[in-house]
Amino acid sequence: MSNLHHPIFNPEKSRLTDGDFSRDEVRLAGRNSGTLLEALRWDLTPAGMHYLLIHFDVPFVETADDWTLSIGGLVEKPLTLTLDDLKRRPVRSLRVTLECAGNGRAGLTPRRSSQPWHHEAVGTAEWTGTPLKGLLEEAGLSPRGRDVVFYGRDRGFSGGIEHDYGRSLVPDKALGDDVLVVWAMNGAPLLPQHGFPLRLVVPGWYGMASVKWLDRIDVIDRPFDGYQQVGSYIYRERVEDPGTPITTMRVKSLIVPPGVPDVYTRRRLVERGRVELFGRAWSGAGVPIEKVEVAVDGQWQNARLAPDIGRYAWRGWRLDWEATPGEHELMCRATDANGDVQPIAPRFDMSGFGNNAVHRIDVTVR
Amino acid sequence: MSNLHHPIFNPEKSRLTDGDFSRDEVRLAGRNSGTLLEALRWDLTPAGMHYLLIHFDVPFVETADDWTLSIGGLVEKPLTLTLDDLKRRPVRSLRVTLECAGNGRAGLTPRRSSQPWHHEAVGTAEWTGTPLKGLLEEAGLSPRGRDVVFYGRDRGFSGGIEHDYGRSLVPDKALGDDVLVVWAMNGAPLLPQHGFPLRLVVPGWYGMASVKWLDRIDVIDRPFDGYQQVGSYIYRERVEDPGTPITTMRVKSLIVPPGVPDVYTRRRLVERGRVELFGRAWSGAGVPIEKVEVAVDGQWQNARLAPDIGRYAWRGWRLDWEATPGEHELMCRATDANGDVQPIAPRFDMSGFGNNAVHRIDVTVR
Repeated sequence: MSNLHHPIFNPEKSRLTDGDFSRDEVRLAGRNSGTLLEALRWDLTPAGMHYLLIHFDVPFVETADDWTLSIGGLVEKPLTLTLDDLKRRPVRSLRVTLECAGNGRAGLTPRRSSQPWHHEAVGTAEWTGTPLKGLLEEAGLSPRGRDVVFYGRDRGFSGGIEHDYGRSLVPDKALGDDVLVVWAMNGAPLLPQHGFPLRLVVPGWYGMASVKWLDRIDVIDRPFDGYQQVGSYIYRERVEDPGTPITTMRVKSLIVPPGVPDVYTRRRLVERGRVELFGRAWSGAGVPIEKVEVAVDGQWQNARLAPDIGRYAWRGWRLDWEATPGEHELMCRATDANGDVQPIAPRFDMSGFGNNAVHRIDVTVR
Repeated sequence: MSNLHHPIFNPEKSRLTDGDFSRDEVRLAGRNSGTLLEALRWDLTPAGMHYLLIHFDVPFVETADDWTLSIGGLVEKPLTLTLDDLKRRPVRSLRVTLECAGNGRAGLTPRRSSQPWHHEAVGTAEWTGTPLKGLLEEAGLSPRGRDVVFYGRDRGFSGGIEHDYGRSLVPDKALGDDVLVVWAMNGAPLLPQHGFPLRLVVPGWYGMASVKWLDRIDVIDRPFDGYQQVGSYIYRERVEDPGTPITTMRVKSLIVPPGVPDVYTRRRLVERGRVELFGRAWSGAGVPIEKVEVAVDGQWQNARLAPDIGRYAWRGWRLDWEATPGEHELMCRATDANGDVQPIAPRFDMSGFGNNAVHRIDVTVR
């Protein structure tokens, strides 16, 4: 990997602001598509509605025929595997909710100028592939292996540094049971924008760990220092903080906005009478959702949880609301089995990561 | 259709501005996803990468089993057809490039506050369905029929008016050969966000005519005065202009940005030497592309046109460029068989419609 610095690619263009949104932010919003909140009704997000954060460009890969995955570095037996080789291995499917670590960034004040997500960077799919563990065991990790690095074929500049997108997992995590090398999403080959033909899926973690267009795995003798590992995806309150690397998703929930919208403001109009509120809740690392509460005008009530659809997948919830004419504020918040609960107000993060504050929606009932 | 005005849904919130982008604009950009420019390499835009302009909410339709299309109003024999009924009729597939009439809005100064598209609201798919003409002939249009109105199941407020999304075609156009009632896209059932289970496709027109979630057709004795027909999708330079209704797409072309991007600014870095520039060009109403020119630093050259892939589909083009180190500006412009050519600078439109100015990309060659 060449770590090239180039003077015109100036990392200082991304700044903290509390004003309107810059053209660069809007251009990113045009590239990165979110899951529409009404699409939370589907257990599995339909093709093309699952959120996407594309750092660089989607590689133009017309066929998987000559794609290979190489596993090298500190291993006893380096491997080079085709898609067919991989598909002959044990196959496993998992339903996994993925969320972008920057989801909610646009709700922070001040906010980092970057992809301006409001709430929409989360989706759930059934991912099919083979456990990473088996591949690493076959290659045979050296005891000197300190970090397992995953590279995609997407390339560009972040923070002034040119690199292929790369992320790592420590051997204990990489050898866990549930990390998959994946070739199918909801029963179909990966779409180009979701990593065709091959990607990693790290259940329970924010999306940055699930490297798309995966073509090589490198076992190294030191912690990986690539930009996406040490220069981004770090919780920090101030520039000078050493910070905490971002790993698992924080507990969170969202409401499907009831009623009908105004096309421009997205303000909702709801008919009076019984309204079934519906939404989703999830947490990280496979920790179950224990409780979802909904507040109408500040009065909290417990919602009913829908059946569990998978350890790593979001959970539906419902609450019947007797809507009375006037203006109302709806909020929801989830609590997970660790006792973690969503905060009412966002916690500040310098880069806009990990905002899991409660979701609020204003509605007019007539 | 009830045309309800509600005081909180204030159409004046959408305004002309030349400043940064408002939160409302960014929220829309988060909902409406564009085709990534690198995806122009595919003749048919892959599932989930085709642009989407969703006015209201995507209806939650789990099955097509109880969906019907009704054809009524000034017809001899009103019809109510299931999906199975429709699929037993003559089947036709067409490759059609659709573009949002608001594509390029964000490049106008001043601009209307609305969905802030830059270049990405265009895509091409193979649409399969049955000709509308046959359905209308079976129902038997009354000679008193002046307009054929198409309604979707999506509902909300635009311009302060509550309505189901509706658009019309005059009988001559509706009875043309190429307007389709469509249930499949690129060989698969429509995705929810593209109109599942049924939509209209009007080849050669901007996307607003291709009504999604189509469930009823109404033949009326006067020109349709619904909001989407007379309150929006009108070219106007000033508020007081009567304006011109928007119909067919204007000639246009785009470049796939060469090299690799900076994640935030999308600025491109290109290696010196031969670079094959590639892009797409299209026009409206099935008018062929006659010529594509590419300018490097203002010097125009003719590009080579790729094979035609369909009367209503975009056309690929290529040009070899010997890239020399330094800063360069690339532009492309198309000319169609009517002699219409893209302007260098955008024409102003009050609502940001029909911007077909040349596409410019700045690149750094090393």
